[in-house]
Amino acid sequence: MIRLRDVAERAGVSVSTVSNVVNGRTQTVGADILKRVQEAIADLGYQPNRAARFLKTGHTPLIGLLVPSVANPTWGLLAREVEIVAQSEFGFRILVGNTDRDPQKERSFLLDLWSHGIRGVIIVSPLLQQSHFQEAVKRGLVAVCHDQRPFPDSTLEVDYVSINHIEAISLAVNHLIEKGHRRLAFATASGKSVSRMDKIDGFLAATRKAGLSDTSEIIEEQATARYGDDEMLRLGQAIAERLATRPTRPTGIVALNDMMATGLILGFQNHGLHVPDDFSVVGMDDLPIAAFIPPGISSIRPPMKEMAGKMVDRIVHRLNNPKEKVETFIYSPQLIARNSVADLTRK
Amino acid sequence: MIRLRDVAERAGVSVSTVSNVVNGRTQTVGADILKRVQEAIADLGYQPNRAARFLKTGHTPLIGLLVPSVANPTWGLLAREVEIVAQSEFGFRILVGNTDRDPQKERSFLLDLWSHGIRGVIIVSPLLQQSHFQEAVKRGLVAVCHDQRPFPDSTLEVDYVSINHIEAISLAVNHLIEKGHRRLAFATASGKSVSRMDKIDGFLAATRKAGLSDTSEIIEEQATARYGDDEMLRLGQAIAERLATRPTRPTGIVALNDMMATGLILGFQNHGLHVPDDFSVVGMDDLPIAAFIPPGISSIRPPMKEMAGKMVDRIVHRLNNPKEKVETFIYSPQLIARNSVADLTRK
Repeated sequence: MIRLRDVAERAGVSVSTVSNVVNGRTQTVGADILKRVQEAIADLGYQPNRAARFLKTGHTPLIGLLVPSVANPTWGLLAREVEIVAQSEFGFRILVGNTDRDPQKERSFLLDLWSHGIRGVIIVSPLLQQSHFQEAVKRGLVAVCHDQRPFPDSTLEVDYVSINHIEAISLAVNHLIEKGHRRLAFATASGKSVSRMDKIDGFLAATRKAGLSDTSEIIEEQATARYGDDEMLRLGQAIAERLATRPTRPTGIVALNDMMATGLILGFQNHGLHVPDDFSVVGMDDLPIAAFIPPGISSIRPPMKEMAGKMVDRIVHRLNNPKEKVETFIYSPQLIARNSVADLTRK
Repeated sequence: MIRLRDVAERAGVSVSTVSNVVNGRTQTVGADILKRVQEAIADLGYQPNRAARFLKTGHTPLIGLLVPSVANPTWGLLAREVEIVAQSEFGFRILVGNTDRDPQKERSFLLDLWSHGIRGVIIVSPLLQQSHFQEAVKRGLVAVCHDQRPFPDSTLEVDYVSINHIEAISLAVNHLIEKGHRRLAFATASGKSVSRMDKIDGFLAATRKAGLSDTSEIIEEQATARYGDDEMLRLGQAIAERLATRPTRPTGIVALNDMMATGLILGFQNHGLHVPDDFSVVGMDDLPIAAFIPPGISSIRPPMKEMAGKMVDRIVHRLNNPKEKVETFIYSPQLIARNSVADLTRK
């Protein structure tokens, strides 16, 4: 059996350095030392006994990831990025829970994490109801909420890692305004969450600032309770149907996300209408498909890798430093301009 | 602290029945009893001590899921279906490993599962190299290979759960032939796997049987080593570019999967060519997006829920019955005809 001391000897470092690496305490380990230790671990085929370590430290090197559905491409990409950084930088693996926006399923997943000895979780939940998160945090779970900022007056002791949703929609609105659009719409889904409310607030503020309040509108389509895989495509298509037959229409539409933008564009096509000739569209999230849907969807890109890294880093750090205060980290997104916005200033 | 006997009393059943439910041995438990026990567990907030159970039984109620990338929509959907059935029927959770088709990462993931006490894994790997799977199975891992049938002469002791890929492509080819197509192509990606080789064999056999060998072709586009999120879209687009400028072209194309079919259709659009007027296309996998890409992509649907259920069932069953022989389960897919195939018999 290969032991820590064998790895230490091979890497030419102390046993405590190897222990730090194996237990994810890599903050104080230099990059070259880290690499040597990792190579020695691989060469020797060293396997830390994680069940024993769990009993000793009270937590296994697993992180929970609670998402509405990993089949949703945005959360599938997030799961991949989180797994990559957790695995490559800290040796953690990811336990995924698909919770369908159902507080009961979320609660059950958090309880299961606990009974598995998992003490760190990334939460992606659009729910405004948070008592089950409160309960889990009180129990000692170290949590990061993603894609959310703290609610007003929230006492939930978690980190927040998110883009600034108000800034995201402002980038989209201002891009349309710069290209000469004066009749704007925000196409969104029913269902309340802090991020959706921020987007609505951001849309209203940005259009008001440009003096376009009277010619701008929120178009909301009824979402189903669950988070179906084709929900956003369907909602986008439904909004396209409504707009196609209206006498006065917006020229520039910001969509809640790229799947909805895709649904809009494909829905318009069914009515012989084309983007950007008849409508301009800006999506959000910059999913891989955005570049492929003709004419190429302009979108707002969140720094996913950076946020995934921060979330894992915060969890590992707070697991090792229980007295560390929680923090909120808000990232700026970036406009990726493709060809879905017509330049009306040239006409 | 809530104990098994409290749950048993509440549910009005024996302690051993509760134990069976909690430990996933639900085969002999009636549906109404199962429901009563589950309700009692929920009502009382009973939490099985899974770490203790791990030490006792040698495995935790976790199943590993090894996929190239959960960001790929096909595997994202699979992960969701597997998690749903594992959770609702057996109380198991899913540990996901994104392994990028890299045998080193696959091996490392399997080692990690072992050191976490996880003894069951679903493997989705296109690799022909299997020594690391052999090694894991010898160690005692209970594995199901998905989307594969056994290699000829393979001695790997795993279950196989897959659709019949030869049947899948035959359905697609015969649909095109029925609609009067005589010049056919199979658009695929480079890189060898049993499923891709089966598809090529199936395409050649089906076209030969119809006397169309001379007018049919395999069109292969060079894939990158890794499994990028937009790889299939990009390959489809590249094949569309090649076909758009050729003097003689196929009229009916079967695409390796729906993302490639989407890339083909969007790529043709860039050249002013339309599906189904200029080309007919049949995809595979029946991803949610297939219904939305105009004109609606005809596709081949695998019974995902059924296969996910079978995989989880096999793992739980074999964990509880170590002497159980491995088996291969091959499912028939289904043609979902939409509007991407022109009917040439009417012309």
